[in-house]
Amino acid sequence: MCDRPSEFELIARLFAPLAAAPGALGLTDDAAVLPARPGCDTVVTVDALVEGVHFLKDDPPDTIARKALRVNLSDLAAKGAEPAGYFLALSLPAHIGTDWLEEFARGLAEDQNRFSVSLMGGDTTSTPGPLTLAVTAVGYTPEGRMIRRAGAQPGDHVFVSGSIGDAGGGLAVLTQGAIETYPEAVRHLIDRYRLPTPRLELGRALRGIASAMLDVSDGLVADLGHIAEVSAVHVAIEAARIPRSDALRERAGDGTEAVLRAATAGDDYELAFTAASEVAVMESAAAAGIKVSRIGAVSHGQGIALLDANGGEIAVARAGFRHF
Amino acid sequence: MCDRPSEFELIARLFAPLAAAPGALGLTDDAAVLPARPGCDTVVTVDALVEGVHFLKDDPPDTIARKALRVNLSDLAAKGAEPAGYFLALSLPAHIGTDWLEEFARGLAEDQNRFSVSLMGGDTTSTPGPLTLAVTAVGYTPEGRMIRRAGAQPGDHVFVSGSIGDAGGGLAVLTQGAIETYPEAVRHLIDRYRLPTPRLELGRALRGIASAMLDVSDGLVADLGHIAEVSAVHVAIEAARIPRSDALRERAGDGTEAVLRAATAGDDYELAFTAASEVAVMESAAAAGIKVSRIGAVSHGQGIALLDANGGEIAVARAGFRHF
Repeated sequence: MCDRPSEFELIARLFAPLAAAPGALGLTDDAAVLPARPGCDTVVTVDALVEGVHFLKDDPPDTIARKALRVNLSDLAAKGAEPAGYFLALSLPAHIGTDWLEEFARGLAEDQNRFSVSLMGGDTTSTPGPLTLAVTAVGYTPEGRMIRRAGAQPGDHVFVSGSIGDAGGGLAVLTQGAIETYPEAVRHLIDRYRLPTPRLELGRALRGIASAMLDVSDGLVADLGHIAEVSAVHVAIEAARIPRSDALRERAGDGTEAVLRAATAGDDYELAFTAASEVAVMESAAAAGIKVSRIGAVSHGQGIALLDANGGEIAVARAGFRHF
Repeated sequence: MCDRPSEFELIARLFAPLAAAPGALGLTDDAAVLPARPGCDTVVTVDALVEGVHFLKDDPPDTIARKALRVNLSDLAAKGAEPAGYFLALSLPAHIGTDWLEEFARGLAEDQNRFSVSLMGGDTTSTPGPLTLAVTAVGYTPEGRMIRRAGAQPGDHVFVSGSIGDAGGGLAVLTQGAIETYPEAVRHLIDRYRLPTPRLELGRALRGIASAMLDVSDGLVADLGHIAEVSAVHVAIEAARIPRSDALRERAGDGTEAVLRAATAGDDYELAFTAASEVAVMESAAAAGIKVSRIGAVSHGQGIALLDANGGEIAVARAGFRHF
């Protein structure tokens, strides 16, 4: 099955220290044991990342590792779940060497500590194609209290955390030019693309407050469209209320086109959600130390609309789909 | 994130009927909820399959789907677990079309029914490389009773289910010539490569009987070497006792080289295990309706040895490593 045994032994050596949880069995078994937590539901999510699609070949290995882990932790955040562990399926092209793998493992170790999770198991294969990772993350919520996409109610407000469009701005820069020449604001955008921050504290703080929630991976408009669809409601977003960072505004300006790009770019991994009480949301946001902006409203009907300052609908051509 | 929305909508439509379990939330959410089972441990395993490495580009799509599912169910079988559900991360190259996806979903549906499992969630991405699948399978065992790789004791016998080397024989044929001309025996080998049978009933029947177990994916010698290593024992296999099918013997003969090829080929997905009581093992095998062969013995020491009829050690150059 494996044509590069020495490399796979190296991986075993590098990854074993990441598997501190007893249920991981030191990564020496076919499977892991998840400890049951009385009174808790187990929440499971899977995300795949492909070189050239979700990250770039020259991205630093530690940020690739950390991004793969973080996008999955972001899904747990969006469900109000507390992360526990993760599984890693790694398909490695032949050009990946020892230095790369050491940096990759170092990135995982750093974020494991930061987010209190542990590697539980996985699989390594070779591939004739691009580096491909699939992470399965596992977390817990109090029984029956997972925040779903379905649940938005007419009369709810619509909110989003942090700022939107940064990752798309960073990606646009990275696919255009050489990195040495970038000013600090642009580096901020690139960092936001390479290394999203899962809003775990905010997600947990919104249990019982958010009526529907997800993380922004496909683009704000597309993702709130998912909530509208599965909740069977209409969602209206006021374009002028979409929070954009100073760095992005400096780079892209404030024109309608720039706002539209931000609203349809993916990979921000902020939390977009609906809730009846703005006061409760803002208290949760303050407790979690994360900025949250009210950007729209839920009403009877169906579909998603992006509105200009006069309440007119801005045409949105692009919608993303990623999860099935 | 996605440049082929129509295809991803198709996948959503094709896969939704596969997600019958309530916790799958109709595949409309970021995550799934695993129902807790009082008195049970949750067992989780991940396997990745890559086109050109674990299956061939021209393999029928339904068998690719079923193999991806079955190799994971095989891991659950090896732990004595009862399967419950699975998650699928699918990275699709551009040449994959509607017909292919429909056949793929049909294959999943067929095996879901056969093995009583349900799609719980997943992720679909595009890839510039080969088709890549990562399946995460979830099952249950009575609390504390998962059969591990560590646990083999000096004095135990070594057993393997079914026959060994068929899948390797099938792969060798497929990479050599045109399929139309094959006699029935060769088609059997190809079927064994394309569509392994997870030994779920046998695995459950061996709870409390097998002291250590795994499924043969890297090759019999390499896999029993894993048991020897993590159990800190020596495992000796008698080459003449390795069960080989009539089809394989017809094709490859009975020479030492042919036996060695069978013992080091992967992908058979039979159960290899150790146990103190041959009687108890054979009763379990009869109950599960699966042939089991005693092929060796566990003793103090370390490492794995393949022995000829005179008790001399046969040199084994190739050892596989796949799991980390």
